[in-house]
Amino acid sequence: MVKLKLALELNYEILDQGSDFIFNIHHAHTPYQRVVQESLVLSQTQINPEIYTDAATGNRYMRLHANVGHLKVNYQSTVEINHHRAEPTQIAEVPVARLPMQVLSYIYPSRYCQSDRLHKLAIREFGHLWQGYSRVQAIQEWVQKRVIFTPNTSNGSTSAIDTLIEQVGVCRDFAHLMIALCRAVNIPARFVTGTDYGANPVLGPPDFHAYVEVYLGDRWYIFDPSGTSIPMGFVRFGVGRDAADVPFATIFGTVNSLAPSIDINPVHDNSLNYVLPHHCLQALSTAM
Amino acid sequence: MVKLKLALELNYEILDQGSDFIFNIHHAHTPYQRVVQESLVLSQTQINPEIYTDAATGNRYMRLHANVGHLKVNYQSTVEINHHRAEPTQIAEVPVARLPMQVLSYIYPSRYCQSDRLHKLAIREFGHLWQGYSRVQAIQEWVQKRVIFTPNTSNGSTSAIDTLIEQVGVCRDFAHLMIALCRAVNIPARFVTGTDYGANPVLGPPDFHAYVEVYLGDRWYIFDPSGTSIPMGFVRFGVGRDAADVPFATIFGTVNSLAPSIDINPVHDNSLNYVLPHHCLQALSTAM
Amino acid sequence: MVKLKLALELNYEILDQGSDFIFNIHHAHTPYQRVVQESLVLSQTQINPEIYTDAATGNRYMRLHANVGHLKVNYQSTVEINHHRAEPTQIAEVPVARLPMQVLSYIYPSRYCQSDRLHKLAIREFGHLWQGYSRVQAIQEWVQKRVIFTPNTSNGSTSAIDTLIEQVGVCRDFAHLMIALCRAVNIPARFVTGTDYGANPVLGPPDFHAYVEVYLGDRWYIFDPSGTSIPMGFVRFGVGRDAADVPFATIFGTVNSLAPSIDINPVHDNSLNYVLPHHCLQALSTAM
Amino acid sequence: MVKLKLALELNYEILDQGSDFIFNIHHAHTPYQRVVQESLVLSQTQINPEIYTDAATGNRYMRLHANVGHLKVNYQSTVEINHHRAEPTQIAEVPVARLPMQVLSYIYPSRYCQSDRLHKLAIREFGHLWQGYSRVQAIQEWVQKRVIFTPNTSNGSTSAIDTLIEQVGVCRDFAHLMIALCRAVNIPARFVTGTDYGANPVLGPPDFHAYVEVYLGDRWYIFDPSGTSIPMGFVRFGVGRDAADVPFATIFGTVNSLAPSIDINPVHDNSLNYVLPHHCLQALSTAM
Repeated sequence: MVKLKLALELNYEILDQGSDFIFNIHHAHTPYQRVVQESLVLSQTQINPEIYTDAATGNRYMRLHANVGHLKVNYQSTVEINHHRAEPTQIAEVPVARLPMQVLSYIYPSRYCQSDRLHKLAIREFGHLWQGYSRVQAIQEWVQKRVIFTPNTSNGSTSAIDTLIEQVGVCRDFAHLMIALCRAVNIPARFVTGTDYGANPVLGPPDFHAYVEVYLGDRWYIFDPSGTSIPMGFVRFGVGRDAADVPFATIFGTVNSLAPSIDINPVHDNSLNYVLPHHCLQALSTAM
Repeated sequence: MVKLKLALELNYEILDQGSDFIFNIHHAHTPYQRVVQESLVLSQTQINPEIYTDAATGNRYMRLHANVGHLKVNYQSTVEINHHRAEPTQIAEVPVARLPMQVLSYIYPSRYCQSDRLHKLAIREFGHLWQGYSRVQAIQEWVQKRVIFTPNTSNGSTSAIDTLIEQVGVCRDFAHLMIALCRAVNIPARFVTGTDYGANPVLGPPDFHAYVEVYLGDRWYIFDPSGTSIPMGFVRFGVGRDAADVPFATIFGTVNSLAPSIDINPVHDNSLNYVLPHHCLQALSTAM
Repeated sequence: MVKLKLALELNYEILDQGSDFIFNIHHAHTPYQRVVQESLVLSQTQINPEIYTDAATGNRYMRLHANVGHLKVNYQSTVEINHHRAEPTQIAEVPVARLPMQVLSYIYPSRYCQSDRLHKLAIREFGHLWQGYSRVQAIQEWVQKRVIFTPNTSNGSTSAIDTLIEQVGVCRDFAHLMIALCRAVNIPARFVTGTDYGANPVLGPPDFHAYVEVYLGDRWYIFDPSGTSIPMGFVRFGVGRDAADVPFATIFGTVNSLAPSIDINPVHDNSLNYVLPHHCLQALSTAM
Repeated sequence: MVKLKLALELNYEILDQGSDFIFNIHHAHTPYQRVVQESLVLSQTQINPEIYTDAATGNRYMRLHANVGHLKVNYQSTVEINHHRAEPTQIAEVPVARLPMQVLSYIYPSRYCQSDRLHKLAIREFGHLWQGYSRVQAIQEWVQKRVIFTPNTSNGSTSAIDTLIEQVGVCRDFAHLMIALCRAVNIPARFVTGTDYGANPVLGPPDFHAYVEVYLGDRWYIFDPSGTSIPMGFVRFGVGRDAADVPFATIFGTVNSLAPSIDINPVHDNSLNYVLPHHCLQALSTAM
């Protein structure tokens, strides 16, 4: 089991009139990710945020109306994550005929993952491989071999097709391309937002992160195509078809967003219940 | 109330090995659309189709595995539709702050409706209008004025952006462009598949149809941006973000699809419970 | 030397008012391609076509105004082609610093060849190869390995990017992708239109063709990325940056185009001056 | 007549090995733009630049190989521009049948001006207007009304289609969209690079500029769709189909480009031969 304490601070300058926000920064409630403790402090004290949990995904959204001026959002939580672990060689894909119906929507194309255009490419590259965890690893490696992590080369309208062509991007772009290629060979794949852990010193301090879950066997397994971080330390905010579904913040109004600050610390424990997140060869899952 | 009998026949030649199909051709179960009677006949008698109803939308999916050879799918149903009707001038938009949370996902961009790229255009064209049903009508008219109904000019990867640029398309393309423009001004909009009714003689016999629902007041109202048909006679199969979510048939395998046949007849009734579908000036809704 | 007789017939129905046409169906005049004899017959006898030869390329354009009704264009010519031949292993690329200035424009991106977006991909795939004819062959093979010749999968707006993603197309699409990849590593490449020869029986009778010329050593060498035909038998109409520059016919007005007919025959010769076109391992060029 | 003195300084840090450059920063030689005096100073004194003038356009290209280290390029010139002036109401479009053949290539689509996709839109918006200078003004106004000058919203792959959709951009983007719309109604249009004059104080000091020339009557007339500057003071570097043809600098190698400095001053003259550039209602041309 992994236990992590996270402190997140967001700052905005709200101009003109007030603005509406929809945040997805509360840690998701899932059978594998337990929020032991959490607190939320808003600098505008008269705000009455509304919090909503989506039953299908466990995503938690917070909607609020902020007034003109400065808004600081301070979210802290302690989370226990009890990963399901499995041997990669034991994990097979699920034929379309046996996929759970609620999983099927994740084989369809979405805003940033135009898998419908990539069928022939994906079949040529991956169609001959054994249909299991290792095929998804091959897709991940294919993406990692082609795309070079390069900040400031992509923007909010960059899609998997763009990333495939231009071969640069950040974690979100790696995730979109990997998802599109999985779906193109009928493997359900989805986009997860959260926080990274132990990120590459080159990339700096803890940050928001985007990664991938793929449905194999009887559950969703975690993949980190940008390869910049330690998956065992990921804490989940939300899951969706792609980045269009799970923005950290959707803002309605004229707002300046300042740089966020994020702090993540593992909890050590004498009882040895908790391990530090580390790279491992097992497949990890936190969602059925 | 409207009552319609529909008979739908699909024919496929399945090659190689067998193929998996996921159909969305059962009429949806909604509080406003009641399936009085239905029957399904498959020419391959040993098939055991699995039928699944999505709780959130009422969409009904049928999954089956067909063997090599010919497959005929014959679906017949009798449906009663009890439209909610309202005065257009009385129907206001719902501010983002008060939209039901489960409706919010319909303001985000999707595969074929890249509303994120259309904000400035939509604000310039529609930002100054009264925020209600009439603004959505203005969007619909804007689309109708620009796009010319032209078969065989679009394909499965044609998106709202393409339609905006090239100004030709079919019902699906009109729907995608209208949806993208609504979302670009934060009005929730979604894609509906079903059957048309009383279609323009130029366009021929009854056919599959795609149209739009927009969330206004406290429910989803029907719009028909391609303007080729009588909305009161629409019978719903499925609803989704865009065409990627609700294909009539998703086919896994090598299959030749033959032309479908569709027959639709209104039921007359001495008790006068049932009216014939007709154009009306009221706003119509069949979904909360 | 190769000698070919070509007969080309085009048919149009001109509606409404008359229409203007710009044709590029006269065989180009180049130092290597000599038009021994030619004739042009137009079914509308009162037409006075204007013929223009572009000095830089040898392309010949015919402009005419046709009246309402039927227009038949019958062009026949006998052409001698005296290929420059060279050993592939002896042909090196020309560094940018030494490229002739008038060749430089062929390293820039164009309508259908967005080489600017493909730099990283091209460097990764081809950057490490010896900079000569064999690198261009490697690019051609890369394209041939990925794209599957499939009629009716592309249209007039399909670009190299689309073909790279969707991996289907016809000769024009193969040519655009190969050109874009060459330019992306700073090798000048251009689009040639003409007629094929000895085409694959599967593809049927002689037809219009699109292929590629690449600047290597001190001249333009012929490549046929769609691989459907015998390059030694190609007869050139025009050369340009891509298909936007050299349409066979540009039509201004409302016109139905009927299927063209093309007939090509090699000339046999007792003096043995003329060989039949055949596949050969040497590099071929017909343009400096 | 207008007389201007221009001083231009470019600075680069050349890394790794040396780099090749192709500049288009010499003022073009045209019958209307006379370079009275010019000087070029390169900080790397051993460089032997090659200068080439394109006969068709008057564009002047300078190719050079720079060594590792700092490169300063200092270009100064004095230019006399003798504008052809005409009454807008007297200037008609030229029917395709009478366009000079060498002008025809400017009605075809190019990398950033996909006019082929905009025919229906352009016909709907501009097809009914009188075919002359005022129709081109209408196209310019249409663009100005839709696109908002916004630095840092576009990049090197932004095309006319993107600008039409997203409605933001800089001078280059305004030019591409205007050119694409002109070509879509068969009006030849091309892209011009040069320097602006008397730019809007908001936009700061003199800068590189991109604008449009349209073929009307018997010559190319100047249009400035971004509307940020005084066309009479434009000094021309190069002309091409779009930005792909006339980059100020094409760089082959690893180079850091530092901000350029540009200084422009009108020459006053006692003899009154020279006027200061000013906004005027006449149509201006500097190219046949």
